[in-house]
Amino acid sequence: MKQYKIAVIPGDGTGPEVVREGVKVLDAAKERFGFDIEYTWFDYGGDRYLKTGEVLPENAVDKLKKYDAIYLGAIGHPDVKPGILEKGILLYLRFALDQYINLRPVVLYPGVDTPLKDKGPEDIDFVVVRENTEGLYAGAGGVLKKGTPDEVAIQESINTRKGVERCIRFAFEYARRRNKKKKVTLCGKTNVLTYAFDLWERTFYEVAKEYPDIETDYAHVDATCMWMVKNPEWFDVIVTDNMFGDIITDLGAMIQGGMGIAAGGNINPEGVSMFEPIGGSAPKYTGKNVINPLAAICAGQMMLDYLEEREAAAAIENAVKEVVSKHLKSLSAGKMGYSTTEVGDLVAKYVKEGV
Amino acid sequence: MKQYKIAVIPGDGTGPEVVREGVKVLDAAKERFGFDIEYTWFDYGGDRYLKTGEVLPENAVDKLKKYDAIYLGAIGHPDVKPGILEKGILLYLRFALDQYINLRPVVLYPGVDTPLKDKGPEDIDFVVVRENTEGLYAGAGGVLKKGTPDEVAIQESINTRKGVERCIRFAFEYARRRNKKKKVTLCGKTNVLTYAFDLWERTFYEVAKEYPDIETDYAHVDATCMWMVKNPEWFDVIVTDNMFGDIITDLGAMIQGGMGIAAGGNINPEGVSMFEPIGGSAPKYTGKNVINPLAAICAGQMMLDYLEEREAAAAIENAVKEVVSKHLKSLSAGKMGYSTTEVGDLVAKYVKEGV
Ligand SMILES: CC(C)[C@H](C(=O)O)[C@@H](O)C(=O)O
Ligand SMILES: CC(C)[C@H](C(=O)O)[C@@H](O)C(=O)O
Repeated sequence: MKQYKIAVIPGDGTGPEVVREGVKVLDAAKERFGFDIEYTWFDYGGDRYLKTGEVLPENAVDKLKKYDAIYLGAIGHPDVKPGILEKGILLYLRFALDQYINLRPVVLYPGVDTPLKDKGPEDIDFVVVRENTEGLYAGAGGVLKKGTPDEVAIQESINTRKGVERCIRFAFEYARRRNKKKKVTLCGKTNVLTYAFDLWERTFYEVAKEYPDIETDYAHVDATCMWMVKNPEWFDVIVTDNMFGDIITDLGAMIQGGMGIAAGGNINPEGVSMFEPIGGSAPKYTGKNVINPLAAICAGQMMLDYLEEREAAAAIENAVKEVVSKHLKSLSAGKMGYSTTEVGDLVAKYVKEGV
Repeated sequence: MKQYKIAVIPGDGTGPEVVREGVKVLDAAKERFGFDIEYTWFDYGGDRYLKTGEVLPENAVDKLKKYDAIYLGAIGHPDVKPGILEKGILLYLRFALDQYINLRPVVLYPGVDTPLKDKGPEDIDFVVVRENTEGLYAGAGGVLKKGTPDEVAIQESINTRKGVERCIRFAFEYARRRNKKKKVTLCGKTNVLTYAFDLWERTFYEVAKEYPDIETDYAHVDATCMWMVKNPEWFDVIVTDNMFGDIITDLGAMIQGGMGIAAGGNINPEGVSMFEPIGGSAPKYTGKNVINPLAAICAGQMMLDYLEEREAAAAIENAVKEVVSKHLKSLSAGKMGYSTTEVGDLVAKYVKEGV
C-alpha cells in the first residue's frame, strides 16, 4: 500500500478548524482508495511565535524537506504585526523549499454564486501559474534618508532567466496536460516594465516554440483584470510574475465564489510542495465552528492530485461539487446553513460513498 | 468672458473621432455657459512618428506648457511596436509635465450595465487617486547577461517622500471636497513590498492626522481587487502607487461599464493637466463611426470641472447620464444603436437645452 508522509501546519485562527476537516476528508479518501497517510503536526504560527519569540525553528526547513507534501491551514495572528508571520513562515517556506510555482485553479463549481452577471461554470475554468520565488517578492530594495523630506524608498523586482523559464515551461506543460483550450496567456506589462517583461516575453515565445500544440496569447496585467471580469472564458492557463500573480489570483478567487472555496499549491516539482486554502486565518470566526472548510478540503484535493492519487482527488472534487450544489446556502462563514464540522462530514461521506 | 487655451492631441486610431465629439460637446457647453475655448491641434501620434521617425518634437513640452489644459484622444498605432508611443508620448508627457496625479472616477451611471451582479449606481461611486510619476513607472532597472541562461532582469520601483506625500495629500483633499463617505483607503502591499509601502504607510498616517474629519482605511492590492468586485460600496477615495493604480483603475473601468465610458485626468495642480478617455486607440474601429465617444466626452467634462467651470461640467455629466439611460442600447462600439456622431449630437443637444 502506498504511504504518504504529510507535514501538517494548521497555523493560526481558523486554520486548525479547516485543516481538521481537510484531514477528515483525506482520511475518507485513503480508506476508499487504498493508500495510507501518516500525518506529522507542526505548531508553526502566531501562538508559537508569541510564546517563543521564534517565527520558525532553525531546523524547520530540513525537517519539512523529509515529507511528501505540506498541508497548511492559515498564517496570520491578530496580536502579531502584519508581515512578520507571512514573511517569516509562508514566504520563507516558499523560498527555502524553492516552491517556484504557485498554482491557482479558478473554477466555478455548479451551484456556487459568482459576483459576475451572466457567467456560469462553463465560463470560469482556468488556472493561474504564478512565479513564486522571484520578482518583487525577492525582498530586495532599500531606503535612503528615512524619515526626512528627502526619503527615497526602492523596491526591486528581480527576475532570472532560470526562474522565468521554469515557470513558463510549467505553464505550457500544464496546458498540455489539462487538455482544454490548450492556450497559455502571458500576463505582464511589457510596455512599462521594459526590463522585467522583456525577459518574460522573450522567454515565453522561445519556450512556446517547443509547444506547437499550445496557443499563445499576451495581455497586460490591467487588461487581464478586465477580461477576468468581463470575459473569463477567454482564459485557459495564465502565466505571470509573483506580484501580478498575487493580484489576479485573488481576483480569481472572488469570481469563483470567494475565499470559502479557493485553494492553491506552492509547487516544487523536484522537491516538497505545500498546499493551502488561500483565505487567511479569519481570526474573528475562530472557534465558532462556522468557517467554511471547503477551501482547505480543495487544497487537500490538489495535494492528492499532485501525489498522483488522481482517482481520490477526483472523488473529493465530485464530493465538494455535490455539497455546494445540493447543500450549502452560501460559501460565507456563518451563512452556509451547516457548521464547519458538518460540511467536513458531508464531503467525507460523499467521498466514502461516491457520487 | 473667460477664455481657455486647450491643446488638443487627437492621436491614433479612433482618437480623432472621439475627440471630435468631445469638442462638439465642449462647444455646446461654452455657448450655454458663456466662456470661450481656443483649441490648438497637435498631430502627435503614430502617423506622425511613422512619417518623421520622431515620437515627439523637441519643443513639445515647452509648447504644451503654455496651455490651460491638454485634451488627448488615444495613443497607440498598429504599425508601431507596442510601448514606443505609450512611453514616448503618454508616459513622457505625464512625467515631463509632472502630472503627479492620475485621477480616475469609478462611477456607475443609471442605465449602464455593469458585469457585477446585484450592484447599482448607489454601490459603485468612488475615485482612484493614482500616483503618476514614480514607482515602477520610473523606468529604472537593468539587465545582466542578456540572452544567456544566467540573465537577470531588474525593474525598480522608486518612491520619494515628496512624490508619495503630495499624492496622499491630494487624496485627502479630494475626499474632503467630494464630501461623500469622507474616507481614504490606502491600497498597497505592506506585508511584501516592505521598503516602498513602509514609506507609503508612514506618510499616509502622518498626513491623515491633518484630516481628522476623514476616515482612513488600508487594503492590500490583492484584497482591493476582491472588494472592488464584491463590495465596491466600501470605497470612497482610494490612493495607491502608479503600478497598482494602473491595475485597479482598469478593473474600475470594467465595473463602471467598460472603456466606453471611463475617463481620467493626469493632474498637475500647479501646472498643465491632461485629460483622456482611457480606452486606447481601438484601431479596428477606426473610421467606421461606431466607436463610443462618451469616455472622451467625460474626459472633457473632467477638464471643465478642473478648470472650475463647474456648472458646465455638471451639465455635461447630466447630459451623458440622460443619453446612457434613455438612448444607448449598449456602451460597446457598434452596439450602441447610434453612430459616434449621433451620440455626440445627442449629448451636445442635452448640454445646450439642459436636462
Ligand atoms: C500572505 C501574503 C504574503 C501572500 C502573498 O502575497 O503571496 C498571499 O496574499 C498569497 O497570495 O498567498
Ligand atoms: C498605455 C499605458 C502605458 C498606460 C499606463 O500603464 O499607465 C495605460 O494603461 C493607463 O492606465 O493610462
